[in-house]
Amino acid sequence: MKIIGKMGNKSIKNIDKIDLFNNDNFKGFLIKLADNVNVAEGVNAIESILRCIYRNQPISTKKIAQYTKLPLPIVSKVRTILERNRILSRVEQGAIYSKYGIKLINKHLNFKMKHDLKCPKCGGKGILLDETFKKILKKHKEYTKLRPTVNTSIDQSFATPETGVYRAGIMADRGDLEGKRVLFIGDDDLTSLPTAMTDFCEEVVVMDIDDRLLNLIDKISKRENLNIKTIKQDFRETLIKEYTGAFDVVFTDPPYTLDGLKLFLSRSVEGLGEGSSGVLYLAFSHKPMEEYLEIQKIINSMNFAIYELIPGFNTYEGSEIIGNTTFLARLMGKNLKKFKNKEIDLNKLYTGEVKPTIRYYKCLNCNKIHSVDGKSLRIENLICNCGGKKFKMIRREKVKK
Amino acid sequence: MKIIGKMGNKSIKNIDKIDLFNNDNFKGFLIKLADNVNVAEGVNAIESILRCIYRNQPISTKKIAQYTKLPLPIVSKVRTILERNRILSRVEQGAIYSKYGIKLINKHLNFKMKHDLKCPKCGGKGILLDETFKKILKKHKEYTKLRPTVNTSIDQSFATPETGVYRAGIMADRGDLEGKRVLFIGDDDLTSLPTAMTDFCEEVVVMDIDDRLLNLIDKISKRENLNIKTIKQDFRETLIKEYTGAFDVVFTDPPYTLDGLKLFLSRSVEGLGEGSSGVLYLAFSHKPMEEYLEIQKIINSMNFAIYELIPGFNTYEGSEIIGNTTFLARLMGKNLKKFKNKEIDLNKLYTGEVKPTIRYYKCLNCNKIHSVDGKSLRIENLICNCGGKKFKMIRREKVKK
Repeated sequence: MKIIGKMGNKSIKNIDKIDLFNNDNFKGFLIKLADNVNVAEGVNAIESILRCIYRNQPISTKKIAQYTKLPLPIVSKVRTILERNRILSRVEQGAIYSKYGIKLINKHLNFKMKHDLKCPKCGGKGILLDETFKKILKKHKEYTKLRPTVNTSIDQSFATPETGVYRAGIMADRGDLEGKRVLFIGDDDLTSLPTAMTDFCEEVVVMDIDDRLLNLIDKISKRENLNIKTIKQDFRETLIKEYTGAFDVVFTDPPYTLDGLKLFLSRSVEGLGEGSSGVLYLAFSHKPMEEYLEIQKIINSMNFAIYELIPGFNTYEGSEIIGNTTFLARLMGKNLKKFKNKEIDLNKLYTGEVKPTIRYYKCLNCNKIHSVDGKSLRIENLICNCGGKKFKMIRREKVKK
Repeated sequence: MKIIGKMGNKSIKNIDKIDLFNNDNFKGFLIKLADNVNVAEGVNAIESILRCIYRNQPISTKKIAQYTKLPLPIVSKVRTILERNRILSRVEQGAIYSKYGIKLINKHLNFKMKHDLKCPKCGGKGILLDETFKKILKKHKEYTKLRPTVNTSIDQSFATPETGVYRAGIMADRGDLEGKRVLFIGDDDLTSLPTAMTDFCEEVVVMDIDDRLLNLIDKISKRENLNIKTIKQDFRETLIKEYTGAFDVVFTDPPYTLDGLKLFLSRSVEGLGEGSSGVLYLAFSHKPMEEYLEIQKIINSMNFAIYELIPGFNTYEGSEIIGNTTFLARLMGKNLKKFKNKEIDLNKLYTGEVKPTIRYYKCLNCNKIHSVDGKSLRIENLICNCGGKKFKMIRREKVKK
């Protein structure tokens, strides 16, 4: 369909000359727009951005990304193009429709809900913190301030303190903490702290490769008398015998790659016991359809079934690239199976390995531009020649293989 | 483990002679209890019943079944055994722990939460009805009173009016109604009515085999000007060409058997379009682990992925056998595939075919006992020799093949 702009370089220009009130033209525009920003969900993604703005205007780009569960850079690009085409305007609080934009939407998309039905009390999570958990949140907020800087090369990113406590809350509510032995396969989010603060569990064990995190958890555990056991573990290696089959429940928020998932879930299965049964809480990124399907096939092949799946349950500080949120799934497994290491590509565990990207940062002090590949140089280690330590990302570029 | 009672007839007797404060004895008791009531989830099911009562006492058997998502007959049996063993007492409002029972729980199970964290505003559903939907509920409550009697031989059972409206609400909230063509593959719940009452959809089509339902929907549709199209369809046959690939969204609440699921999902795929993409809402019964896994493998093999899964979203009138509730899953599919009829066992579509059962009913007028096999005679057609039309089920028996 060659309706708008040039097909070759995927540009959306000359829109002024096209009558978007024409149904085919509008459809073509949406298709071209989805193509232009290269979003896997295609026109559905564009529609969901338009719908989100319709219900919540004015709304910031970040909020749109959280709401639609699309990557921030894509939302930002779509917004810019919609502004350029005078469908959206920009006010201080964010994006709103122009009069022209509203007319187009009413003609073609038939949006009618001016707000959504999300429960205002629980924000759609379905659970609420009681006094016990509110007290835990207060403490946890202080402790999360002590976290080390993230190590982006192993996909570290920090869930908000609220997310940590809501995770403990939902596990407690579902009966997965009281009297249970709980294992964290990786815990850069420090979810083990609110979990142990409930004083519900028989045992809380954290495995992670990052000494800085383990030391911090140890320190807080001692101060709060939480009795958390920390173990330095490279998940490329199997768990030692003492810990295989030693747990009822595992929580994990693995790197958001298929091989990362396989690896972390295989260690989880070791913790629950191969051939045995157990409960697994999995936080994972919202993915395009094909990858979602792959994820669920991996889960099923290990004999886990999804008993509950809540989109957008987890919110992270930073990590706009995944729209700041991930889903939380409660899986139950029986006769559990793991992947052998030879079935996992250990060179593709982290997103930086699967999709190598160079990011360009501007020093907020002297405006010098730095390129960061995330491997030889990571953003958390960047210091400008002028001594500046604060940067703004201005551009990303995929590395061609 | 031969701790309690006789292994042979699975009875749990002589419990008075056993010290349940002993850890091994208590564990053995739970195992034997799970074995005795023959519950697929084993000790976990018993634990979840004990936990539910701990948090909600006093609580009725029906409420326990809804909460734990276990079949009512199993919950009832467990409750009776726990009473016989003096762990539970019975008060007017339902089951409570005895002092002895509480001591046992505190010693062995470490329950600490005296209430759960379910959001009191939305009951854990995550969405709330706004004024528009509340008005729809008021109307829908009147219309559901006009439903014909259920035909149990094809697994009909009626979702509550609230469930119907919440289903329309969640579909609207997720952006799956506005401007969309929506198909119901079976609609004994009349969910098409609140869906069409929103006036959000481009088209609402209902397919069902039951003329009585289709006529009722037609009548209400005319009166309310809903423009619902009804089509008589035997789902063992493929959809006619006019309706293949004609829809964006399908809703289905199939018979709760694996072959029933395959059949109804295959018709759903025809509605969305083979090789095409679309959204599917699936209401289905909470099942034991192995079957859950089978269900998800079927879903995945058709190229649907689970984007959201809310346990206990749907509540039914009657149908205590499934604990009155089912889950609601929102699936998204791409490059959709269906099962061919030869891959589906058409003789195992309905639960009565998979697990033939004879039920015994007592006439509430003259106390005469009737046996009902659900095939040659169905409960909705039963009339006693005395003219009585009200019955109480007193016993069920599986038919040996």
